[in-house]
Amino acid sequence: MPAELNAEQRKALEDEIKVMGDEIRKLKTEKADPAVIKERVNKMLEKKKELGGGEEKPGKFVLKTGKGTRDYGPAQSALRNSVLQNVVETFNKYGAETIDTPVFELRDVLMGKYGEEGGKLVYDLQDQGGELLSLRYDLTVPFARYLAMNKITNITRYQIAKVYRRDQPVMSRGRYREFYQCDFDIAGQYDLMLPEAECLGIVNELLTKLEIGEFFINLNHRLILEGMFAVSGISPKDFKTICSSVDKLDKTPWAEVEEEMIKEKFLTKEQTSKLGELVRFRELNSNLNNLELLEKMSALPELGQNEKFKKGAEELKVLIGYLEVDGVTTVRYEPSLARGLDYYTGAIYEAVAPKALEGTAAEKAEDTAGQPVGVGSVAAGGRYDGLVNMFDSKLKVPCCGVSFGIERLFAIMEARQKSAVRTTQTEVYVASAQKNMVIERKKLLRTLRAAGIKSEMPLKANPKLLTQFQYAEERRIPLVVLIGERELQEGIVKLRNVVSREEKDVPLDSLVSTIRDTLAAL
Amino acid sequence: MPAELNAEQRKALEDEIKVMGDEIRKLKTEKADPAVIKERVNKMLEKKKELGGGEEKPGKFVLKTGKGTRDYGPAQSALRNSVLQNVVETFNKYGAETIDTPVFELRDVLMGKYGEEGGKLVYDLQDQGGELLSLRYDLTVPFARYLAMNKITNITRYQIAKVYRRDQPVMSRGRYREFYQCDFDIAGQYDLMLPEAECLGIVNELLTKLEIGEFFINLNHRLILEGMFAVSGISPKDFKTICSSVDKLDKTPWAEVEEEMIKEKFLTKEQTSKLGELVRFRELNSNLNNLELLEKMSALPELGQNEKFKKGAEELKVLIGYLEVDGVTTVRYEPSLARGLDYYTGAIYEAVAPKALEGTAAEKAEDTAGQPVGVGSVAAGGRYDGLVNMFDSKLKVPCCGVSFGIERLFAIMEARQKSAVRTTQTEVYVASAQKNMVIERKKLLRTLRAAGIKSEMPLKANPKLLTQFQYAEERRIPLVVLIGERELQEGIVKLRNVVSREEKDVPLDSLVSTIRDTLAAL
Repeated sequence: MPAELNAEQRKALEDEIKVMGDEIRKLKTEKADPAVIKERVNKMLEKKKELGGGEEKPGKFVLKTGKGTRDYGPAQSALRNSVLQNVVETFNKYGAETIDTPVFELRDVLMGKYGEEGGKLVYDLQDQGGELLSLRYDLTVPFARYLAMNKITNITRYQIAKVYRRDQPVMSRGRYREFYQCDFDIAGQYDLMLPEAECLGIVNELLTKLEIGEFFINLNHRLILEGMFAVSGISPKDFKTICSSVDKLDKTPWAEVEEEMIKEKFLTKEQTSKLGELVRFRELNSNLNNLELLEKMSALPELGQNEKFKKGAEELKVLIGYLEVDGVTTVRYEPSLARGLDYYTGAIYEAVAPKALEGTAAEKAEDTAGQPVGVGSVAAGGRYDGLVNMFDSKLKVPCCGVSFGIERLFAIMEARQKSAVRTTQTEVYVASAQKNMVIERKKLLRTLRAAGIKSEMPLKANPKLLTQFQYAEERRIPLVVLIGERELQEGIVKLRNVVSREEKDVPLDSLVSTIRDTLAAL
Repeated sequence: MPAELNAEQRKALEDEIKVMGDEIRKLKTEKADPAVIKERVNKMLEKKKELGGGEEKPGKFVLKTGKGTRDYGPAQSALRNSVLQNVVETFNKYGAETIDTPVFELRDVLMGKYGEEGGKLVYDLQDQGGELLSLRYDLTVPFARYLAMNKITNITRYQIAKVYRRDQPVMSRGRYREFYQCDFDIAGQYDLMLPEAECLGIVNELLTKLEIGEFFINLNHRLILEGMFAVSGISPKDFKTICSSVDKLDKTPWAEVEEEMIKEKFLTKEQTSKLGELVRFRELNSNLNNLELLEKMSALPELGQNEKFKKGAEELKVLIGYLEVDGVTTVRYEPSLARGLDYYTGAIYEAVAPKALEGTAAEKAEDTAGQPVGVGSVAAGGRYDGLVNMFDSKLKVPCCGVSFGIERLFAIMEARQKSAVRTTQTEVYVASAQKNMVIERKKLLRTLRAAGIKSEMPLKANPKLLTQFQYAEERRIPLVVLIGERELQEGIVKLRNVVSREEKDVPLDSLVSTIRDTLAAL
């Protein structure tokens, strides 16, 4: 048991620990030697022990949520639910089922996928004498584990749930440690590009429905990237690192990307020149459509002969043909799209909505890197045929899917909305003009609720009339039923339209039908 | 780094750790000396270190979910969503908002409420160099923290989310370590018993809507219990422990409960006799209704004079009067209801559905204590005026609420359902009779989806007709549109009713309207 600390000592110790924590995070960001980081963490834990845990007096809580997390209040919840309703409706329209998995997985299951690298960002549960568990990092690994565990070779499912990453949170950029993911995946042995067309159809339909403004879906193929790299003389072992440079082209000029590849990744000027012509093929041929671009690249002497490129290009041509039939016109073939390739095995795609925040208060927002918040993907996916296999070497389950950047979509919808989503669905507020009418209000409320009308009344015996009207206005409840003693004796109530403030007398026995008609006409 | 183990050594070590783990759990169940448990845990952790973590080969995962957790597959998810839809509709009908809070809270926030005792069942996150966090144990503490943190004194909200308890899981009894809770609470300064009446109205309406069979809502009041205990000569310091005995009366005969109170809790026979007459007042006066019971108890010479009892009884009479106006007839005043009283400050209530599983396959199921699974509460709640105060001593926010046993309701609905809930909402399946019709199917699918009709097609170039019909039958998709080359040339398709297997020719240009009419008539 550590010695009791006085407030001053405690504060000093807390400050010291905070500095140590900041230092550790800095080391982690700089990818310092793990042994050094570990030593620092141990030192900090020692200090924390000195601080002790049990001394704080009850009532002295720090009233906050965990770092990088936040509550959704009623307004945010209502907005989120209205977006998710659109999302789920679209998934249902395309025939998807849904599943739910636990928030934590056995640590081994997660580590198999992310390895040491990704593991750093995983929240581990404390070993309290049972299994080693970690919070899920995404929804893909739980999905693959679910398929492998149940030997499922065939399912089209969506899952909407929170995932957890011990990342450096950047709230302004919408990067939290707890956030929703929203995944749609088609697992199963199907024919070429038919599942991909469904995924892109869903992206197109949902983004259209959400009215986020103009958007594009960039499309590429792993084999096309591999082919372009091969004819540029880039070694397959550099695939991942060069992909990460190439993928910056949507935000960074070619000259900078090229410099990075030469200075940091040791490509020759000859290699980057060759690669630059290929990955910028759309940019350099902006007058061509998707099929024309593929045709023209296929006609290049070296690239056109590369087996990988040929296969990738043939597959994309089939997909582009299907998308035309489906009426999906927002897809652009973009040879510089190069993300998620530790993972994807075929077609890859990513939706961007560069003007989603145009004209909104959030338009000028920048992230910590000085990039406009608005530029960023709102959905991304592709084909990944190897993942389930990792959990069960005998099980071959080809998969393709798409993950919506649902938190970014929430932010876009929030910025674009003209008026806030209502936080309740109340249709009628039962108010009274005089005192002592609680029983009469309750009787009326019972009648309305029995008729399926969403209704409330003030939970006070003698509420003020003005307060009741204000409540209805603030909550945007469309109708108020106002009861008064004399009117009740005559068998009537007043029905008030909250927006227009018009009132009319309605006989009690036709109140329900009058309310229904009025609501229907609003 | 531990020495590399061979498979045999590893297996032996794993077995040893398992035995140690079982022993620790046993000690915990027996509430052994924490120091002893701690020592055992440390020993086990040492052994685990010997085992090491990184040696297992990839692909050698244990494919399971964490202990006490499980996946919800499509069928369970569909059932759950259909139950939750009813729940949310009811909450909306009563004017509730919704909020969402992070899955973990600062450990101090949780520990303030549960203290050492409850803390044992809390999942802690590992200290990875940041704040100390724990998974939420219920939704009430996050709600109180949310109110205190945002200084909210007035909200009617529901929250549906998973909570986490490191309890000994009993799957057969539906007791998991990860499970949904579903809470509705009214926070704010309102008039006597009006919020309680809303809560009981919601319980009554929702359980009626779910058709779980006959149910009752038992009702009691903390002050009535305190009054009964006082006139029985029981010391206030024994309140909690005697409540836990009294509360067993719904499942255990009086004689056994009395014996427990005498032998284990050291009451005298005189005390228990007096208490028995009072807590069994409903049982001993089964011909009386709620108000009559309260009147008769109030007329008892000693009890009727007890200030606490008088106040509790007066309050319940007001509530019972309101419930009569509201048409809530399922509430019974039950003086032996005595749960949650470390927490509740006024009225308490609990809904039971003793016959919910009657006639179902699950009827005879018993839990590990030999109790029928069917006996158990499906909703419980009450008034708790002190909780928010605990987080902010200056903030007085009276609350009352109800928590639905939503996992039990899922289980009841699952046992009672005549046929499984559909896992998709697909209305039309677009099939083809001949080969090479994928483009034609896609064109038709596009038309249907554009018209808002939920539809799918096989993602194969050349699916077999029989396979397509089987798929539609298994998935209970109501309609199949069957296209054939010759028919298409004539501008018609076949529309097949999957249940009746009737087919009729429909011109393409009236297909959408015919489908809409057919679906509407199903």
